[in-house]
Amino acid sequence: MIRAAVIGATGYAGSQLVALLASHPAVSLTYLASHSYSGQYFGSVYPSLEPICNLMLHEEQIEEAAKISDVIFLALPHGMASFKVTSDLLAHCVVIDLGADFRLKDSSVYEAWYKTHHPSTHLLEESVYGLCELHRSAIEKAQLIANPGCYTTCSILTLAPLLSAGLIDHTSIIIDSASGTSGAGRSEKVDSLFCEVNENYKAYGVATHRHTPEIEQELSLLQNKEVVVQFTPHLVPMNRGILSTCYANLKDGVEEGEIGDAYRRFYQGEPFIRLMDQQLPETRFVRSTNVCAIGWRVDERTRRVIAIGAIDNLVKGAAGQAVQNMNIRFGIDETMGLSTLVARGL
Amino acid sequence: MIRAAVIGATGYAGSQLVALLASHPAVSLTYLASHSYSGQYFGSVYPSLEPICNLMLHEEQIEEAAKISDVIFLALPHGMASFKVTSDLLAHCVVIDLGADFRLKDSSVYEAWYKTHHPSTHLLEESVYGLCELHRSAIEKAQLIANPGCYTTCSILTLAPLLSAGLIDHTSIIIDSASGTSGAGRSEKVDSLFCEVNENYKAYGVATHRHTPEIEQELSLLQNKEVVVQFTPHLVPMNRGILSTCYANLKDGVEEGEIGDAYRRFYQGEPFIRLMDQQLPETRFVRSTNVCAIGWRVDERTRRVIAIGAIDNLVKGAAGQAVQNMNIRFGIDETMGLSTLVARGL
Amino acid sequence: MIRAAVIGATGYAGSQLVALLASHPAVSLTYLASHSYSGQYFGSVYPSLEPICNLMLHEEQIEEAAKISDVIFLALPHGMASFKVTSDLLAHCVVIDLGADFRLKDSSVYEAWYKTHHPSTHLLEESVYGLCELHRSAIEKAQLIANPGCYTTCSILTLAPLLSAGLIDHTSIIIDSASGTSGAGRSEKVDSLFCEVNENYKAYGVATHRHTPEIEQELSLLQNKEVVVQFTPHLVPMNRGILSTCYANLKDGVEEGEIGDAYRRFYQGEPFIRLMDQQLPETRFVRSTNVCAIGWRVDERTRRVIAIGAIDNLVKGAAGQAVQNMNIRFGIDETMGLSTLVARGL
Amino acid sequence: MIRAAVIGATGYAGSQLVALLASHPAVSLTYLASHSYSGQYFGSVYPSLEPICNLMLHEEQIEEAAKISDVIFLALPHGMASFKVTSDLLAHCVVIDLGADFRLKDSSVYEAWYKTHHPSTHLLEESVYGLCELHRSAIEKAQLIANPGCYTTCSILTLAPLLSAGLIDHTSIIIDSASGTSGAGRSEKVDSLFCEVNENYKAYGVATHRHTPEIEQELSLLQNKEVVVQFTPHLVPMNRGILSTCYANLKDGVEEGEIGDAYRRFYQGEPFIRLMDQQLPETRFVRSTNVCAIGWRVDERTRRVIAIGAIDNLVKGAAGQAVQNMNIRFGIDETMGLSTLVARGL
Repeated sequence: MIRAAVIGATGYAGSQLVALLASHPAVSLTYLASHSYSGQYFGSVYPSLEPICNLMLHEEQIEEAAKISDVIFLALPHGMASFKVTSDLLAHCVVIDLGADFRLKDSSVYEAWYKTHHPSTHLLEESVYGLCELHRSAIEKAQLIANPGCYTTCSILTLAPLLSAGLIDHTSIIIDSASGTSGAGRSEKVDSLFCEVNENYKAYGVATHRHTPEIEQELSLLQNKEVVVQFTPHLVPMNRGILSTCYANLKDGVEEGEIGDAYRRFYQGEPFIRLMDQQLPETRFVRSTNVCAIGWRVDERTRRVIAIGAIDNLVKGAAGQAVQNMNIRFGIDETMGLSTLVARGL
Repeated sequence: MIRAAVIGATGYAGSQLVALLASHPAVSLTYLASHSYSGQYFGSVYPSLEPICNLMLHEEQIEEAAKISDVIFLALPHGMASFKVTSDLLAHCVVIDLGADFRLKDSSVYEAWYKTHHPSTHLLEESVYGLCELHRSAIEKAQLIANPGCYTTCSILTLAPLLSAGLIDHTSIIIDSASGTSGAGRSEKVDSLFCEVNENYKAYGVATHRHTPEIEQELSLLQNKEVVVQFTPHLVPMNRGILSTCYANLKDGVEEGEIGDAYRRFYQGEPFIRLMDQQLPETRFVRSTNVCAIGWRVDERTRRVIAIGAIDNLVKGAAGQAVQNMNIRFGIDETMGLSTLVARGL
Repeated sequence: MIRAAVIGATGYAGSQLVALLASHPAVSLTYLASHSYSGQYFGSVYPSLEPICNLMLHEEQIEEAAKISDVIFLALPHGMASFKVTSDLLAHCVVIDLGADFRLKDSSVYEAWYKTHHPSTHLLEESVYGLCELHRSAIEKAQLIANPGCYTTCSILTLAPLLSAGLIDHTSIIIDSASGTSGAGRSEKVDSLFCEVNENYKAYGVATHRHTPEIEQELSLLQNKEVVVQFTPHLVPMNRGILSTCYANLKDGVEEGEIGDAYRRFYQGEPFIRLMDQQLPETRFVRSTNVCAIGWRVDERTRRVIAIGAIDNLVKGAAGQAVQNMNIRFGIDETMGLSTLVARGL
Repeated sequence: MIRAAVIGATGYAGSQLVALLASHPAVSLTYLASHSYSGQYFGSVYPSLEPICNLMLHEEQIEEAAKISDVIFLALPHGMASFKVTSDLLAHCVVIDLGADFRLKDSSVYEAWYKTHHPSTHLLEESVYGLCELHRSAIEKAQLIANPGCYTTCSILTLAPLLSAGLIDHTSIIIDSASGTSGAGRSEKVDSLFCEVNENYKAYGVATHRHTPEIEQELSLLQNKEVVVQFTPHLVPMNRGILSTCYANLKDGVEEGEIGDAYRRFYQGEPFIRLMDQQLPETRFVRSTNVCAIGWRVDERTRRVIAIGAIDNLVKGAAGQAVQNMNIRFGIDETMGLSTLVARGL
């Protein structure tokens, strides 16, 4: 059994992770930490999950957690993990960080977008960007895995085959995304109150959202050139789900059939990619699953491709991909503990 | 022009009150106070309302407000108004309190349900319970008006004619209510977050909700006997609206036709009561209006009447009724500033 | 493997049933019928479920289905199953009917509430009311199982221990329920449109809802006397979930502790009953599970018990209980195919 | 008083129109037609609106309506108005058509996108595109006014000043929009059921939506060149509201300040345009109002402007603009009957 600890167990991503790990056949949960609810039982904070996990929540002591764990998941606000993860810790156990601290290879980019100093830049080289479908072989050997952001997972997976196959003008990419409200986390903010979100739709972080450089880093690797994207997130009055509607100009001569070929080739055999046939993806098609569903249309009038991806932001966009990363790293079946997450009809 | 001040202008009830007063033809808003947002403009907190009101928000100084106002509205958390309202203040202006502090005539009942000492019990005799349809003549002369609670307004108005006409067994009353989430206010609580409320339905405050004694006080006055009720509120994933489903045993011999007669007689000429004909009330029928819609069914199998009332909790359940009280108190048309609040189709 | 057919596979209950059966380890789906979508693939109607089931949908031919099935599930509008089920059919396979036709033992009660003639009253004696926790031993041997309604499952399970232990006045029972909108089915009605349901709360079927006699039949069996109940359903703007808030007068001398004892005794060892400890049930605590969660409060002021039950209307209230019935009938583990339905945090 | 008839009074746009006209100080409603509900009273179909309008609904007879009306509003499915409007009818009264039939000047464009023959192309020259802010003087004299679509109103108003001032590359325009569900109308379709829309977000009509040529027609007029746009609508689980997020490449040398200048100049004095200051528009800011709120950001990294517009799809996107058109045409105050539509806080 893989012994697992979760630091930040009571946020939305953290609790989804606890739910997945608690029912994972190869995992034994050894330690849960929560600053807000330390001293309480997990099931009292999440009564819906009590039947599968009711461990005590501790005030975080990461060294103690390391002693009884093979893997530590960090589900903390941005800027905290980089203070907690040390080479010493990594010598004892694998760390999978669901935050942003180790995602950007270039610390100056991190500091520009996050407006904060990075205290452990020496670990950035060692960390592996945990987008499973792109970096599987590096993940197998990684000791520090930077689990990608939710918008980024959805957007990169939707665009990767197009760039990889050289079908689109890499300077023309516009990503218009929308997310359910769990993406804003469980912190007590007026903007996240029911009455502020319900019956409303808005854009936010226009031209400034911090997932932008993460998308650019990965798309640039695929393109072998610096890719700059336009990324705009929106907030939808629903709990779960992200949809990315991605626009790009087709290169001269590219024909519609090449698009489908590129997707099928790129994602052949991938257990968590679902290429839609006739219908386009909708967020409900993947709710509570670890799947990224992708569809596309070519507009001959404008010579653009519109590629659309959908994920569950808390699963493939956070906790599910973290488990997938763990499965890859520990050499077990990549779908273990994730396969039962079939979307229900409603 | 009636000069009006609002203390607690940025909560949900307070902001609805500002919206109503700002477009009221006989009112001039002179002063807004908000602890959370003092120093900011009202329109920056409520951009949707900026076009009708963009006054500066002050840190509350009630004596200053009194100097420039004929009426002060208090929309504060329970337990605060009783410290702020003084005989001196009442000598200068009318006070309409949207909180609970002056609603219960018996301070021991207040202290039992609110678990707190009442610091100004001498004002309880002077205060008038501002349920307009029941206490209109007292309101006309009141200097301190205790605006009723949302659940209480809906429940009392729904049951009053039945008790007044002596048609029901007053020991058998059960009130099962449900409210939109704005009833929980705009404070930053996990329980009010979108993801906690959406796709959920729950009871709360079972057997302990503080609107219970208020309902009992008013029904007892109508029955001329002590009435004890069972009251259970529920939380609905919607912004606005309260529905009260009220159950009572019919007295022997009471016939169905007497129910309708009692309602029509009791509410004849009332501008804000709508007796439904064939259909039962739904919360959307009264959304954004000051109307209480009432319907009923007699169940001959069980010999019970099921009476159902619906209001908008922020309007008739709070700000609208406060304006109605002001209109009555200042001798202007009772519907002024409230008549345009017609529910839209959606 | 149990060979299973579903007639009415594309309604909300039917599709949930397909989802459960398709991932059930001991079941092989052999036949799906849908009048509205015959000739299409199941996955094209429910893209979210395509990865687990993509059988062709047939125009129903029940005899053909019987030839290749051990069990036929009927998920049809009320009044159809009683024309389709015959003694001959039952000689070939087990029938589990999710509709109302075989639930009421007294055909005159059926005809009074459903305003229609019952064409196969001779089967009513043979049919077993499939509320698993109450009729397990009869279900084990039944050839025709009448799967209970959603409101009824929730209400009966919530009240059964109180009546069985003789703790409440059986003439005083009031059941105030609320359901998510999937309970109205997938038929194309104005009343079920998003804009009609969203931001609204209403009662319906007051004093006339057809689940009433079903609740009364089962409670009367428990009480050994005719029980008449007041039942009022409400519609909540959410997809899934039912909450029943049940009121009853305590018999003289009954003490609070006896309530909890009665529940724990009655439901000891039941895999799908969850007695809440401190918190009361909320619909999200059981979403997508086959669990009925129950909590209660005693109000000493009124000498009433308020017992609250919550289920997922499509699972324990329909498809999940149908699978549970199948498991019981075929002598396999009662929780098989249902245990992975753990509610997620959101 | 302007005598007004509404044909198609019970759809969502039609009923909103009835609500506005019934409370319009200069209008007398003379005639309502509804195919689905003919013979019933308007208030029985829309109980929330009964207090302001309870006319009988007729089976449409447009000539009869013309005899008693100065203006006829058509709120019919696409393709019907072009059969009903004749030169003879226009000789008797003004027609304001909320459908698509007379919006596109080039009937071949109409026929290409709507896949249907246009039976009255001779009226296309006469009809005026009723986007008030762009065509006010023509509207003043028009006998046939083609009220614009919802997405088109929002998108054109958001982009017009940028094209008019020559600030953007007109080949680079991408419009990513999202709408509340009332935009799909009140017809009984599975796709509009609550459970299909709730907790979901999807794109639809990708590269094929019929509002595209309407946007292109108007932007081309402003640009004096053929403008081709990419337009993608999405469906949001809310009742009302449209948000258009519009992307365009800035021409070389254009500076951020020019954007704001262009908007302020273009919309100076417009009563229903609200240029946001610091905040970007959200759909709730304009709910139930006739306002189009517009904000923008310049992204210097990408040299793009992201301009965002928000309207209420049923008001400025349909019924409100129709009333605004009527006001202009009949020479009364353009804001009459629309000014009380102030967005509430929630």
